[in-house]
Amino acid sequence: MIQVGIIGYGYWGPNLVRNFFIQKDCTIKAVADARQNRLDILKQSYPSINAVHDAEAIINDPEIDAVIIATPVYSHFELAQKALLNGKHVLLEKPMASSLAECEKLIELSLQKNLVLMVDHTFLYTGAVEKIKEIIDDNTLGKIQYLDSTRINLGLFQPDINVLWDLAPHDLSILRYLYDATPYSINATGVSHTHNGIENIAFMTINYESGFIAHLNCSWSSPVKVRMMMIGGDKKMIIYNDVEPTEKIKIYDTAYQITSDEDKKQILVDYRVGDIFVPKVSNKEALASVAYDFISGITQHTFPRSSYIIGMDIVKMLEASEQSIKNNGIEVKLN
Amino acid sequence: MIQVGIIGYGYWGPNLVRNFFIQKDCTIKAVADARQNRLDILKQSYPSINAVHDAEAIINDPEIDAVIIATPVYSHFELAQKALLNGKHVLLEKPMASSLAECEKLIELSLQKNLVLMVDHTFLYTGAVEKIKEIIDDNTLGKIQYLDSTRINLGLFQPDINVLWDLAPHDLSILRYLYDATPYSINATGVSHTHNGIENIAFMTINYESGFIAHLNCSWSSPVKVRMMMIGGDKKMIIYNDVEPTEKIKIYDTAYQITSDEDKKQILVDYRVGDIFVPKVSNKEALASVAYDFISGITQHTFPRSSYIIGMDIVKMLEASEQSIKNNGIEVKLN
Amino acid sequence: MIQVGIIGYGYWGPNLVRNFFIQKDCTIKAVADARQNRLDILKQSYPSINAVHDAEAIINDPEIDAVIIATPVYSHFELAQKALLNGKHVLLEKPMASSLAECEKLIELSLQKNLVLMVDHTFLYTGAVEKIKEIIDDNTLGKIQYLDSTRINLGLFQPDINVLWDLAPHDLSILRYLYDATPYSINATGVSHTHNGIENIAFMTINYESGFIAHLNCSWSSPVKVRMMMIGGDKKMIIYNDVEPTEKIKIYDTAYQITSDEDKKQILVDYRVGDIFVPKVSNKEALASVAYDFISGITQHTFPRSSYIIGMDIVKMLEASEQSIKNNGIEVKLN
Amino acid sequence: MIQVGIIGYGYWGPNLVRNFFIQKDCTIKAVADARQNRLDILKQSYPSINAVHDAEAIINDPEIDAVIIATPVYSHFELAQKALLNGKHVLLEKPMASSLAECEKLIELSLQKNLVLMVDHTFLYTGAVEKIKEIIDDNTLGKIQYLDSTRINLGLFQPDINVLWDLAPHDLSILRYLYDATPYSINATGVSHTHNGIENIAFMTINYESGFIAHLNCSWSSPVKVRMMMIGGDKKMIIYNDVEPTEKIKIYDTAYQITSDEDKKQILVDYRVGDIFVPKVSNKEALASVAYDFISGITQHTFPRSSYIIGMDIVKMLEASEQSIKNNGIEVKLN
Repeated sequence: MIQVGIIGYGYWGPNLVRNFFIQKDCTIKAVADARQNRLDILKQSYPSINAVHDAEAIINDPEIDAVIIATPVYSHFELAQKALLNGKHVLLEKPMASSLAECEKLIELSLQKNLVLMVDHTFLYTGAVEKIKEIIDDNTLGKIQYLDSTRINLGLFQPDINVLWDLAPHDLSILRYLYDATPYSINATGVSHTHNGIENIAFMTINYESGFIAHLNCSWSSPVKVRMMMIGGDKKMIIYNDVEPTEKIKIYDTAYQITSDEDKKQILVDYRVGDIFVPKVSNKEALASVAYDFISGITQHTFPRSSYIIGMDIVKMLEASEQSIKNNGIEVKLN
Repeated sequence: MIQVGIIGYGYWGPNLVRNFFIQKDCTIKAVADARQNRLDILKQSYPSINAVHDAEAIINDPEIDAVIIATPVYSHFELAQKALLNGKHVLLEKPMASSLAECEKLIELSLQKNLVLMVDHTFLYTGAVEKIKEIIDDNTLGKIQYLDSTRINLGLFQPDINVLWDLAPHDLSILRYLYDATPYSINATGVSHTHNGIENIAFMTINYESGFIAHLNCSWSSPVKVRMMMIGGDKKMIIYNDVEPTEKIKIYDTAYQITSDEDKKQILVDYRVGDIFVPKVSNKEALASVAYDFISGITQHTFPRSSYIIGMDIVKMLEASEQSIKNNGIEVKLN
Repeated sequence: MIQVGIIGYGYWGPNLVRNFFIQKDCTIKAVADARQNRLDILKQSYPSINAVHDAEAIINDPEIDAVIIATPVYSHFELAQKALLNGKHVLLEKPMASSLAECEKLIELSLQKNLVLMVDHTFLYTGAVEKIKEIIDDNTLGKIQYLDSTRINLGLFQPDINVLWDLAPHDLSILRYLYDATPYSINATGVSHTHNGIENIAFMTINYESGFIAHLNCSWSSPVKVRMMMIGGDKKMIIYNDVEPTEKIKIYDTAYQITSDEDKKQILVDYRVGDIFVPKVSNKEALASVAYDFISGITQHTFPRSSYIIGMDIVKMLEASEQSIKNNGIEVKLN
Repeated sequence: MIQVGIIGYGYWGPNLVRNFFIQKDCTIKAVADARQNRLDILKQSYPSINAVHDAEAIINDPEIDAVIIATPVYSHFELAQKALLNGKHVLLEKPMASSLAECEKLIELSLQKNLVLMVDHTFLYTGAVEKIKEIIDDNTLGKIQYLDSTRINLGLFQPDINVLWDLAPHDLSILRYLYDATPYSINATGVSHTHNGIENIAFMTINYESGFIAHLNCSWSSPVKVRMMMIGGDKKMIIYNDVEPTEKIKIYDTAYQITSDEDKKQILVDYRVGDIFVPKVSNKEALASVAYDFISGITQHTFPRSSYIIGMDIVKMLEASEQSIKNNGIEVKLN
């Protein structure tokens, strides 16, 4: 039985507790949060879990095998490093850490210590993303040409990270999972409407040598909540609308084929618009699968889907986007 | 009675003929198109209009007072220049010309000759844009902070201009009309999926010194047609969905207010989500108003809404976007 | 070459003219309408067609082979009877006539004279209805259990017929075409909000011995236009939304199966909710197919899809609905 | 402090427990359910509440002041009668009882004993219905002319009551609350696709002497969930779409005005289509307000909104609908 400790009982913490609570092969021994009112809420629902103020109480507890870190990003590295040094498996909330360098150090440490290091990119475990992955992997879409995602809503302005660090990890993890290639470069633009200079609206273009392109539109300043992703292949195209309750994924039998006349002076384009297919998507709770994947990683030595590699690649892209945005949109190469 | 000649009877030509035909104070004397089959279609519906093969027949006709040019962009400058030199008022299809330099020469010539020079940015005359203009001008939105537009569909791939030159003039004209300020710089990124290197997917960020930002997402490769524009102010926000038949504009009584604590270490954000108002929007045909504005410019010496200044500014932005896109998204300053 | 005359150039007349004008094997010789302004509009677009004030001029023209009657319902019988007596084929606008008795007389006459008698139930020729027919005929839905249709909008109040006589012919023709069985009885309820007692809101239940049921909801008093039809089978179900531009038909792989325990005290229901399929639907103009079907009926002796049998059955159902509504919703048997 | 007992811990029971648990001035002393597994679930979340198998343990507990009955309809009368006889206030789940006669007996008993008798028509306490009530009461809609409601989904087939008894209480309670008048008569039609003869699809027309009409469309056999209500006044109209997360209510500034020419031979209709207003609607949990209203009824002697009068009127209408449906849709007068 794996003993688990959770650090941070803010917005996401209760979801982690709820899902690890019902997980087989593991018990939540303790939850840490500096705020007494958060601990009170915890105790009301889960009297059996120890509520502690200090993360150290978890990190240093010899009975605890695995630590889940759901604190602000800036604290990820230090907490995870200590936990790994103390021989504990670690599940980090997204994004993995504040910099690529931090990610690399944690990965190295986990490999040295032979410990599971995983990042909670929950979206990779949703029924919708699993279905899209299946559709792409069986070549239904043909050669994939673009991914375009809009993730906008009103709030919540973060005090320490910009809107890309806050929202784009979702899109980037999906992108990285669905299209398994390293981007060549990144451009990003944006604007801050607050005095602290942290962007609340930002756009990101991710360029690949293959001609594939990805684009993200992220905002905390939209009157409506939009979670819309389009993925275009040369055979079919997908629209994934995550706010739609029952028709999240639509597969369009729509494509164009580009030919050229003999002397290549003209392009000729054949358009095809056909049927639409709306596959049924599982409504399972994704976070339960994250919990299962983490515990299996520990007990069965499986390699988690939402691995440190994906986690690190996302931080690499976020770092590049920040460099681009601070340099007026200049192209930042990734390697 | 103003005598009008129309050059080009392709996709847009029949709309121009239909709307100028019913315009008071003007008569369509001739339409020119090199393609006989297009002229046949014209004659079938409008036996009273002269159908000619050569644009010169219109440009050199001493009885014709005004020329409307609805040909591919690359030919705009030469045709318009000749027409102005021959003393004819000119209405150009969008975009005005292939370069800022061309626009400037045409404007200079029209001023010298005291002739009307106008560009057909039809959207400025739609009920929806007129309503939004009214809402912005009466300060309903407060200080405007962003405009974000998505204009995507399947096709039609253009052989000579990229997707921004093709689709963005609509958004840029609306942007320029609604937010009367000169942008500071432009970034653009994109990709071509054809061998001719012409971008079929592209994104454009338009930066302003005021902190206002605009962003365009244009594509010929989308399975669905989207024409969605969001405009955010610090008091209210608008969503303008042009494919919606009856609820094109929604005004959200939604905003956030950003304050800071005394020592400016934290930002505090107040969110407000309120009622939505969907104003009735006139269904009038916008192109009829374009025709009226052009003829009035000639007969009443009014200054057209869709003026050469707007036309030129749009070409300036398109030119900058092309320079950016060809230089990997680098920021291109506008002045 | 069949010579055609059209009586009535009101709302629907111009559509008839446009579609018969481009039909092979036929020429429109004349159009009759008592209103000079309607004839003026006709002459503007179609100078080659004779414009006459009096329907008799068409009915008595020996050169005219076929007459299309697009006048108010109350005049259908007299005009059609005269035309048939004069040896002319007849296409009647829907509904066929004011009563079952009138329909029967016209049918008898057409059979005696060996003339085509057809009713313009245009919907039967739309891409959407043709697709649904195909889906039903190949048993995709299984045993069909219900059809439920809502056809509501604002206006246009008719002065002489109630909302069922005005709107329900569309639904009834689709029902009759898709489900080829004679209903057992009809119930109808409704209300009039005008002093003339003509119902502007009405509901109709059509009962079948097989257990199949159809229900119509018709209104001239709705703030929005709804054209929504649901068809449920025991294997799959269809939603046909005619105001949707691109996704008119959705096929739900959804069903329930009812079993019972051994002593039939309980029912057990298995629900299945699966994928959704949105077939591409042809955008062809249905009225062109109506015209083709009518002319083919004359020249090729084919039996029209929108036959006098369907036309008569619909009048029979409308007559029954009126009898029910006037008798407080009492069940009216059809045979 | 009011001591409460809850009988029935099935589908709705947990919601009742959750909302009464957080209510001031009351404590849940015990919950009764014959099924041990339901009691286990209760104890897991609420160890402080007594879990009992027998309803009698609650009804006969002298310390319990008020009983909430959330059992199948057929058992309502007997349980409520016993509770009232034992001097307990009673909150009944909807519908109130199986017959008008049962309702009347319970009401008489509650009046004799001076006890609160209330029915849980939860919808009357939703933000949406409260907003509509406000809009109607301030005469925004003008004279109300119709209410048309569609409440359809897949399942859950009930073994003992038909789809009207199951789903229509929601619509009827809203109707009764918004339009405070007694209907004149009811017609209902429907069909059963099960061997037990219980209707799974049914339609109900509710006629009023004022010319107002209401119509309900209820089904357990729809592939999609629809909860759509239209309310038309002679000044404005409302659409209330309960499955819409953020825009539940739309107020259409749409109307028609009917005039007649002098000799009343013709009707003239003026149509007006204007703006749409989407008021913000509170997301509060309605059942918490039900709990508050019930407890206030006991402690403050207020008269509950969802009173026994509304509860009884709904059973009266359901009873009439059943009589109509069993007599082939015949009109059943209500008094």
